[in-house]
Amino acid sequence: MRIALQLAEQAEKEGEVPVGAVIVQRKTGKIVGKGYNQREKRKHALSHAELLAIDEACRNLGGWRLPDCAMYVTLEPCLMCAGAILQARIEEVYFGAYDCHNGAVNSILEAFLLPNQFKTIAQGGILQEECSQKLTAFFRNLRLQRKVP
Amino acid sequence: MRIALQLAEQAEKEGEVPVGAVIVQRKTGKIVGKGYNQREKRKHALSHAELLAIDEACRNLGGWRLPDCAMYVTLEPCLMCAGAILQARIEEVYFGAYDCHNGAVNSILEAFLLPNQFKTIAQGGILQEECSQKLTAFFRNLRLQRKVP
Repeated sequence: MRIALQLAEQAEKEGEVPVGAVIVQRKTGKIVGKGYNQREKRKHALSHAELLAIDEACRNLGGWRLPDCAMYVTLEPCLMCAGAILQARIEEVYFGAYDCHNGAVNSILEAFLLPNQFKTIAQGGILQEECSQKLTAFFRNLRLQRKVP
Repeated sequence: MRIALQLAEQAEKEGEVPVGAVIVQRKTGKIVGKGYNQREKRKHALSHAELLAIDEACRNLGGWRLPDCAMYVTLEPCLMCAGAILQARIEEVYFGAYDCHNGAVNSILEAFLLPNQFKTIAQGGILQEECSQKLTAFFRNLRLQRKVP
């Protein structure tokens, strides 16, 4: 999660909502995919941290399934990202901050408990304070900047 | 939807589950994004028809929002694709066959009715018979092939 937080910092430096994600192959402990939010920079709806990490991991592991993998992400995944995690058959997801508006793992929906889907296990609240603080500070600064003429 | 069906045929020719999608800019009637399922060929979890169409449309229109756009897709979108449609702010979705196992628009979930999300309007059952038949035939052939030694 520390590395995911560093990736979130990189997003922040580039003016993006600070979210970072890493995918770890459990048996080797090796990071097989990394991503940070780049929606504005890439002008691309699919450029969330989680999707970029899955993209990299599929390329690295050479398949659409990512067996024996865990994702660490600083914010609760949205509907698209939760769906992508299921599509990639990622077995475990650890996230930091809860997202009461868009989070699809616990908040607006429990996507991993839907019928007929792959069984992904999730746990939220990992380094929650640090992950939340980064987001809160980002949005506070954004509001302050907008008040400056 | 006829063009989406042609794209589904292309997927089938390449040995993929036959699903095709197009995104149309409503005011011009112009196709701004096309995609067909390429999950096996690309060995990539994100290569569903809808995501490939959104990818192309974001590149063509130069933004992560796809305003004034409608998607035509031969199969009810899954959770990932429904989420991506919301992320891209696509206003209308027309789909062909219902997917009782994975469909996230009407079947296992009504994703476009979740709270705090963009309001996408959806209608299913467009050219339903043709869209369903294509899928049924594909899976029938697959089962037959697997029985051959």
